[in-house]
Amino acid sequence: MRKLSIFIATSLDGYIAKPNDDLSFLKLVEKEGEDYGYAEFMANIDTIILGRKTFDYVVREIGSSHYDNGQRDVYVITKTERPRMGRTTFYTGKLTELVQRLKSGSGKNIYCDGGAEIINELLQHDMVDEFTISIIPVLVGNGTRLFKDNRPEQHLEFVSAISFEAGLTQLHYRRIG
Amino acid sequence: MRKLSIFIATSLDGYIAKPNDDLSFLKLVEKEGEDYGYAEFMANIDTIILGRKTFDYVVREIGSSHYDNGQRDVYVITKTERPRMGRTTFYTGKLTELVQRLKSGSGKNIYCDGGAEIINELLQHDMVDEFTISIIPVLVGNGTRLFKDNRPEQHLEFVSAISFEAGLTQLHYRRIG
Repeated sequence: MRKLSIFIATSLDGYIAKPNDDLSFLKLVEKEGEDYGYAEFMANIDTIILGRKTFDYVVREIGSSHYDNGQRDVYVITKTERPRMGRTTFYTGKLTELVQRLKSGSGKNIYCDGGAEIINELLQHDMVDEFTISIIPVLVGNGTRLFKDNRPEQHLEFVSAISFEAGLTQLHYRRIG
Repeated sequence: MRKLSIFIATSLDGYIAKPNDDLSFLKLVEKEGEDYGYAEFMANIDTIILGRKTFDYVVREIGSSHYDNGQRDVYVITKTERPRMGRTTFYTGKLTELVQRLKSGSGKNIYCDGGAEIINELLQHDMVDEFTISIIPVLVGNGTRLFKDNRPEQHLEFVSAISFEAGLTQLHYRRIG
């Protein structure tokens, strides 16, 4: 069965962004030639799921080719229909149904690139199989938390912890069962 | 100058306790003969600061000798005066003034054993010098967060990440400056 993964960076105090979508703390660990395993991770991914706000943010900041390079299916979870663009589908149905359908299909693994709302909805339904969480050495103090309150308990299998020169530690866990 | 340290375990989603002070998830990593560096850490500590609720909890669950073994000063931060017991003082003054006084005195390092309220008040005033945070491989879903919202930003120096057989990863950071 295809696995659904998250691959995300947080501050030590658990935020993925400061208020107003400020991601500047990620610069603390930017280092030329170091992608923290992202390319290797993406080599096993052929499908991306993400929220509409995250999609619009990335398209604005980086460009639409960041997700849809013609080699992957992209599902943008949204309440408002938009026409399909290349392999990018704007999906207005139930997230859990989409994930069940994708997981039972064939292909490489599925990557949920956020935002926190989508990740937490997946966690509510025990649908995340692999967690790669990179801890940035900073307490940002406030912002958008990766993990929201009031989720079900989920036990994890520890896979590895890898530390990098810039002070980032990447934790890897796997769903049990 | 004496340093103030925290040495604490959290779930991967950042909780130090589940609702109703339920610490049962710590059992996931209990292993005979493995103290996760606690004795070595405590060898450099001669003063403990903690909140009244945490103190009462530990005295009830473990016994009063857990903190005050006659070899350390213990300061319990409380709103209600109680008579001194051995080397345990019930402190009703300002936490920041106590910490400034202790740090500028002589002795080994100072350990804040919680709870989250006391730790977050120290973080509000940039008074934590060393962070040892042990990540338990579980998402507990809800409870008492180690880090509350609305703190100032604090950059940290990464010191080490050590993984243990039971799946616990211990992250160690140091205050910059």
